[in-house]
Amino acid sequence: MHILVSNDDGVMAPGIVALARAMVPLGKVTVVAPSDNQSAAGHRKTMHKPLRVNRVKFPVEGVTAYSTSGSPSDSVALALLGFIAEPIDLVVSGINRGPNQGQDLTYSGTVSAAFEAVIWRKPAVAFSLCDHSEDAEYDAAAEIARQVVALKLYENLPPLTLLNVNVPALPLDEIRGFKITRQGLRQYNDELVERLDPSGRPYYWIGGGAPTGDVTEEGTDLWATDQGYVSITPIDLDMTSYAVIKDLEARGIAELKIAL
Amino acid sequence: MHILVSNDDGVMAPGIVALARAMVPLGKVTVVAPSDNQSAAGHRKTMHKPLRVNRVKFPVEGVTAYSTSGSPSDSVALALLGFIAEPIDLVVSGINRGPNQGQDLTYSGTVSAAFEAVIWRKPAVAFSLCDHSEDAEYDAAAEIARQVVALKLYENLPPLTLLNVNVPALPLDEIRGFKITRQGLRQYNDELVERLDPSGRPYYWIGGGAPTGDVTEEGTDLWATDQGYVSITPIDLDMTSYAVIKDLEARGIAELKIAL
Repeated sequence: MHILVSNDDGVMAPGIVALARAMVPLGKVTVVAPSDNQSAAGHRKTMHKPLRVNRVKFPVEGVTAYSTSGSPSDSVALALLGFIAEPIDLVVSGINRGPNQGQDLTYSGTVSAAFEAVIWRKPAVAFSLCDHSEDAEYDAAAEIARQVVALKLYENLPPLTLLNVNVPALPLDEIRGFKITRQGLRQYNDELVERLDPSGRPYYWIGGGAPTGDVTEEGTDLWATDQGYVSITPIDLDMTSYAVIKDLEARGIAELKIAL
Repeated sequence: MHILVSNDDGVMAPGIVALARAMVPLGKVTVVAPSDNQSAAGHRKTMHKPLRVNRVKFPVEGVTAYSTSGSPSDSVALALLGFIAEPIDLVVSGINRGPNQGQDLTYSGTVSAAFEAVIWRKPAVAFSLCDHSEDAEYDAAAEIARQVVALKLYENLPPLTLLNVNVPALPLDEIRGFKITRQGLRQYNDELVERLDPSGRPYYWIGGGAPTGDVTEEGTDLWATDQGYVSITPIDLDMTSYAVIKDLEARGIAELKIAL
């Protein structure tokens, strides 16, 4: 098996090193990831400027690694569209510094790398650790990632569906098990911060506190990690609200004529 | 009613001018949009650098407009987090040059601006015209946008749900009506193009043809516009695959213990 590893924290982040190392016993491992930190990059596709790719020395024996000037999903696209000649069987992304839960998914570069993989019809799993700190410890999450891949949970998913895995920040022997979850409800605490530059012109930060969320609703990703479980959420790129289709049809919209 | 208008093609693109002009009869209109073209920006959140905002002269009487150095969703966040002091009742985004259908949604800056709006609990509608050309004609799509907003289709949607509207590139009297649709199946035709710089080092473009897709599957966004209808797709930020949750639970994953 040939496993492509990407992330959004940058090719030298400790989380991707831990993830690549955990994949080595399972197959051939190739890393293609952004050169720099691209947290909250979203599913950006770089079309109007060219991309650079550089071979980098990676601290895991036997792993070939490249840094790119693109986004996380550009990195996956580059690899799958032919920069990596040998066929790829699985794409894993992470281990992200900090969780990707609730409405974080469309912001997340880590999860967007997995979106890109399933668009190109490769199975994909995104891994995130529920710890935002600089000195977060990735060993337990990497072992969980190894187990998730070894269990082949990514097999037999429908097209355009990936797995989003969030691991609580606990030692391995304190993690209570796996939960299959749904997206929970994030609460963002962003605040607009205005500053003045040396010439007195304003500029703005999107600041405020880290996101929180509803950890009390059983069965959600936010609940599971709060309870000490690994959260595994199947994610589908079909974002259609089928319930609302029925509502709008009941309101007779589909019979409305265009007013001329 | 106070309507915020944003987009991803940049504050001076003809599509946003047409959309803002179409909103003027319906309420007070404020434009906050990226200064430059940010097609395929995704749902990027700018956290590690500050944002600039500049008042710009906008070619529609009575409309106050600002350009930002951020992404489309940053522009919406800036406005909703307080840069625009007067409360906003509705966020509209577009009119995008080119459709946003199928798996385009997470790439789309236009749709991501609407994601951001519903995250901050404002109703939102994204508008796109199925014409990629430089000289696309936005008048019919702008009139459709006016009718969609005047019909108040954005009201009474569940939380975190928006409307994604795609308009066929036809004169108004040739558009056949509205269809409530689901996301269809996009086909991307990207190719990796390698070039050499003057010093002989390679660089890469994500090139290839424009996306195509399955226009034969009745009820999808791709089918509706191909048939000459306005496509209105309700989109939910909950991307959970509930069907796959059942499959994974049936496979006994939730009872698996962590191997120590």
